[in-house]
Amino acid sequence: VTELASFPLGRVAVVGAGQVGTMLGAALRGAPSGAGIEEVALFDRDPTVLGASLSRGAGDRALRGVEEALGSDVLVLALPVPGIVRFLEERGGEVAAGTLLIDTGSAKTVVVETMRRSVPPGVGAVGGHPMAGTERPGPEGADPELLRGAAFVLCPAREDPEALRRARAVATAAGARPVETDPHLHDRVVARSSHLPHLMASALALVMATVTEDARRDLLGPGYDGAVRLAASRPEMVAGFLGANGPEVRSAVGELTAALEELLSALDAGPDRLTGVLERARSASERLGVGP
Amino acid sequence: VTELASFPLGRVAVVGAGQVGTMLGAALRGAPSGAGIEEVALFDRDPTVLGASLSRGAGDRALRGVEEALGSDVLVLALPVPGIVRFLEERGGEVAAGTLLIDTGSAKTVVVETMRRSVPPGVGAVGGHPMAGTERPGPEGADPELLRGAAFVLCPAREDPEALRRARAVATAAGARPVETDPHLHDRVVARSSHLPHLMASALALVMATVTEDARRDLLGPGYDGAVRLAASRPEMVAGFLGANGPEVRSAVGELTAALEELLSALDAGPDRLTGVLERARSASERLGVGP
Repeated sequence: VTELASFPLGRVAVVGAGQVGTMLGAALRGAPSGAGIEEVALFDRDPTVLGASLSRGAGDRALRGVEEALGSDVLVLALPVPGIVRFLEERGGEVAAGTLLIDTGSAKTVVVETMRRSVPPGVGAVGGHPMAGTERPGPEGADPELLRGAAFVLCPAREDPEALRRARAVATAAGARPVETDPHLHDRVVARSSHLPHLMASALALVMATVTEDARRDLLGPGYDGAVRLAASRPEMVAGFLGANGPEVRSAVGELTAALEELLSALDAGPDRLTGVLERARSASERLGVGP
Repeated sequence: VTELASFPLGRVAVVGAGQVGTMLGAALRGAPSGAGIEEVALFDRDPTVLGASLSRGAGDRALRGVEEALGSDVLVLALPVPGIVRFLEERGGEVAAGTLLIDTGSAKTVVVETMRRSVPPGVGAVGGHPMAGTERPGPEGADPELLRGAAFVLCPAREDPEALRRARAVATAAGARPVETDPHLHDRVVARSSHLPHLMASALALVMATVTEDARRDLLGPGYDGAVRLAASRPEMVAGFLGANGPEVRSAVGELTAALEELLSALDAGPDRLTGVLERARSASERLGVGP
């Protein structure tokens, strides 16, 4: 609370009212008063999305255009990664001095580098990535409760302690834990922990699409839903972060293919070898704290 | 209820008191009285597992040895697939005439073929696979509620309408929907809908194990848990069904690798191509009825 009160956040604008923007807007509107948030204003170029987001409590009011967001105390870009980069390139130079500019994209190197190039020095520029969300696209998929206790990655674009403190206050006000991270490390890990699982789920859905028998609906085991769930994500969003993290994503797929080949070799070598590799995988998943 | 009452199931023995045996034993003990179940007797060669299973309500009493199960009215083999095959080869000839013999393994061709070879004609022999369960091994992971409405695949080993009717009554008594299926079709689909997801989850855990930085715990996105969950399954069980369904599993991994390559090619070709392939995957996952 002390941390919050020292950095009143003032007028917040959220650009992009999809699942993430709605989640974050609603969480910030529910922030303790010590966060010093005067209002959350919301913009989306799709009026239907904007209306749905407002009706879920993501904003106090709608902005009529993105230019109205440029002078906010805090400006949050909650767009797919290519949209964030485009915004920074086209509008970054117009963001008012004193504004804290933060984004929510799941690829950070490209965002932070574009911030450095496009945003004036007087603007506080911090790459952000709340590690929370659902696979359900749009305002309907938003659940602000998911931010509670979740990591909110922060990658400062410049040496700017004041901007970092304010960004930490944004994350905390939303209920999340601010975690300062190097953008390259973020992209390397997230390529494997998030971008790769999206590709795996979509690949699994494509494999199952080749099973044409009517009976297959009865033959979906209990593990299938969990394995394919991410394939329901919005294709434009997924294509955006995969494209923005291309080299790491390609490496991650290569590592997955190698791991699958190791498992198949062990399958050929017999049950003891296969059990051993599966045991190693189980230990690894447990060390990462994946619980029941 | 009429269907149940016409085929009183009598004395049921469940051999194997792990997650599946416990789930099934508890569900059968909770069956409506019309199912005509006199008792559920339970056996596991591990007394600790047997005790834990009994304390979760999976049986009315423990059997002291597997030979006590051979004369039951219904004998359920709830072992890993290699254990089912071994039981059939070593003990199949001793199962009493008039017994309904059914298993729960997730590979059906090898089980049904072994039943044909090893079990006397007077025994009703039906391969079974309840499409329900969790990734948590042992009696602790059992949840009999998961059987409610789940498909219970039945693959009769022989032309034997009476055995099939009794097997349907077992599935129904457990709360599930009996679904008669060709064992080859079962193995082909389950290789893709269940065995492949197990391999994918283990491969993902192996990939993440190479990310050594302490920070990675904070960088696990919300999709990671779902994607890796199956890696927590019991290695011996997974090795058992993968080994018993080897050719189909290898084909499934080949198809997955091809789908991943298609996605990477689309990634190289640009966002529109990638969005198109992801859209196709999303449609496929929705056609299979995977919901939010």
